[in-house]
Amino acid sequence: MPPTFPAPTDTQSLEQGQALTPRFDGNGLIAAIATDAVSGDVLMFAWMNADALSRSIETGLAHFWSRSRRTLWKKGEESGNELEIEEMRVDCDQDAIWMKVRVKGRGTACHTGTRSCFYRRVALGDGQAVRLQLVPTTTPR
Amino acid sequence: MPPTFPAPTDTQSLEQGQALTPRFDGNGLIAAIATDAVSGDVLMFAWMNADALSRSIETGLAHFWSRSRRTLWKKGEESGNELEIEEMRVDCDQDAIWMKVRVKGRGTACHTGTRSCFYRRVALGDGQAVRLQLVPTTTPR
Repeated sequence: MPPTFPAPTDTQSLEQGQALTPRFDGNGLIAAIATDAVSGDVLMFAWMNADALSRSIETGLAHFWSRSRRTLWKKGEESGNELEIEEMRVDCDQDAIWMKVRVKGRGTACHTGTRSCFYRRVALGDGQAVRLQLVPTTTPR
Repeated sequence: MPPTFPAPTDTQSLEQGQALTPRFDGNGLIAAIATDAVSGDVLMFAWMNADALSRSIETGLAHFWSRSRRTLWKKGEESGNELEIEEMRVDCDQDAIWMKVRVKGRGTACHTGTRSCFYRRVALGDGQAVRLQLVPTTTPR
């Protein structure tokens, strides 16, 4: 399963074309956002290399590249909390992927045990010593 | 308005603490996701430096760092399509920001004139010559 994506060509094709020509960054990675197919909440943000993107497309399960462990990572491989991809999209300049997913297993996408990695709200309005507030991220399923 | 955020300390504080200690990358940037406060759709993905994050928090309007133009960028400054931040969150390891926004002006967040930058769906299931399908991204307001 060689991860083969054609290289981007001109801006017109990149933005309006029908071919997936991902713009991987200098490290060979593309940003990937996973949102809850039910609630719409952002569950996690991670990175994919060509292999992870290719496997995600072929299996319908989210795969990522772990920058810290420097390894391909099938989300939920150990925890059972796989991310089933209901829909995948790419953005205008093809440097970001958005997946609407269903969380399997215990339904927690974050390694801290919460449903979403985004469980803290940033208090707006004060640029000094910005405080974070815990928010519930559990979604009825 | 000096953009001053405390540096991250230990993992416990980073993941469970109440202080915003963003983990900017080697280029001084943090990933920023904007979703539609009404529909939940992802509208755009961009980057913030400390200044852009600080201004976003203080003004309630999304600011970014343009990597191509190498400049601070108040979204909608020219187009009028500002992003009013209804809620901002940070993820577990504080290297990504999620904003629920309301798009002002003509209501289009993408420079191509669509509401969302994610207007093309990736056809799953085939790793070869992956095709993109146009999807409507207009949200009734």
